[in-house]
Amino acid sequence: MRIAVTAPSCRLPEAAAERVRALAAAEFPDVELVFHPQCFLSDGHFAGPDAARAEAFVDCANDPDFDALWFARGGYGSNRALEGILPRLTDAARAKTYLGYSDAGFLLGALYAAGIGTVAHGPMPGDINRDGGAAAVRRSLAWLATRDPASVEASVDGATPAVAFNLTILSHLLGTPWAPDLSGHVLMLEEVGEYMYRIDRALFHLSSDPMIRRVAGLKLGRCSDIPPNDPDFVRSEQQIAEEWCARAGIAWLGRADIGHDIDNKLVPFGRT
Amino acid sequence: MRIAVTAPSCRLPEAAAERVRALAAAEFPDVELVFHPQCFLSDGHFAGPDAARAEAFVDCANDPDFDALWFARGGYGSNRALEGILPRLTDAARAKTYLGYSDAGFLLGALYAAGIGTVAHGPMPGDINRDGGAAAVRRSLAWLATRDPASVEASVDGATPAVAFNLTILSHLLGTPWAPDLSGHVLMLEEVGEYMYRIDRALFHLSSDPMIRRVAGLKLGRCSDIPPNDPDFVRSEQQIAEEWCARAGIAWLGRADIGHDIDNKLVPFGRT
Repeated sequence: MRIAVTAPSCRLPEAAAERVRALAAAEFPDVELVFHPQCFLSDGHFAGPDAARAEAFVDCANDPDFDALWFARGGYGSNRALEGILPRLTDAARAKTYLGYSDAGFLLGALYAAGIGTVAHGPMPGDINRDGGAAAVRRSLAWLATRDPASVEASVDGATPAVAFNLTILSHLLGTPWAPDLSGHVLMLEEVGEYMYRIDRALFHLSSDPMIRRVAGLKLGRCSDIPPNDPDFVRSEQQIAEEWCARAGIAWLGRADIGHDIDNKLVPFGRT
Repeated sequence: MRIAVTAPSCRLPEAAAERVRALAAAEFPDVELVFHPQCFLSDGHFAGPDAARAEAFVDCANDPDFDALWFARGGYGSNRALEGILPRLTDAARAKTYLGYSDAGFLLGALYAAGIGTVAHGPMPGDINRDGGAAAVRRSLAWLATRDPASVEASVDGATPAVAFNLTILSHLLGTPWAPDLSGHVLMLEEVGEYMYRIDRALFHLSSDPMIRRVAGLKLGRCSDIPPNDPDFVRSEQQIAEEWCARAGIAWLGRADIGHDIDNKLVPFGRT
């Protein structure tokens, strides 16, 4: 199978691509991994201008010779490319798998809302730079190559539709034309690098949204690298999530095995 | 006139209240300023538990002997008290003026959405702690006491309805049951302490919302204390705002004289 990698958010270092290529070559001989040159562009915060990021995405998505499009890494910026991508996708794009997380959640959400392709939340090539990151990259490659069930978050049963998002990204996607209808879905959320008061505020925002109140339930992934709150926030991220679920009448379904870390499991969107 | 002060977000230091009391006594002899004891409560991040903050607000708002309710300061937390406040307000609350900004924008928005009272975005007692903060406090007192036109943001013409919000707060209010319909309004936004990429992301969120796309136009207040973006974001906050306005078909109306500083002018909501 052939997997294209583009960077809809921030630039991927060449050395990271090289390590992922080597891992794929060694362990997944049936996978051909093609890093689009756009991955290595730089334009201020982004992996090239909005138009270049959109162009690379559309080129790969509409190319019938690719089976999957894997997002290189997160950061910030995929939202800026949405309007340059979504209207231009063709039937070839519908036959494809899309995989990433973090900022790429803007694209996962928009693709899922449009019913385009098989969409999944999970590790990206950029995760190779984490300590032990090969495990995360391997997990995604195993799922892309063979739909290895061991790669998938354990609570995903295939019958109840599921989705996973970074909390802040979903908060910024709500209300836009690209937001998917998550009614009836198990919603998994993870966060990284946000103060506890911001986690609380984003969960207020989400859980107050009438559409989000129709989810089948909420599962909280890991919230890592939380800066110290001054004064102490007292509540933990799980207490916060449970409180907003209770207030909003959303079923609290416990923790999810996802996060900005090497243990991040895959969550295919919808029924599987 | 009698003005009540409560703290729907974070605790006000007693010393700040004392300085504001002294300023009011010296310069506004017709004003009786009553700091509700709840202002000085502390419960982790907040000025007392959600229920105590809601109770103090409702007590003062529903008390016909007060003419105005002035929010003590921002921080975070007024959103957590909304559901304990809005359903309990009576006719006495409708005859009142409400003034604050920053996190208190959750309340300004919810009150304006419910058509309760005269709502305005402007300096709070806590601003006394800024260098030269007496000027900001004096500006609000002059408007509360006499509707001094010199206190009001210069572009407010009274005919076109206007509103002002902290960017991040409005982003988190959108889609909730407490969000006002801003169609036809001049929307003024200000921000403090957010990375440029977050300003960009929040403006994407707002300007992608169909309701926000119906505003009469957008004016950008000051964006202060922006942490350095790594790498440099290249665009300034004004370029960002102009870009999202252009993309969304929102009229760009230039800068607004509001912000987290002592020059922050008042913006009465709606037509005046």
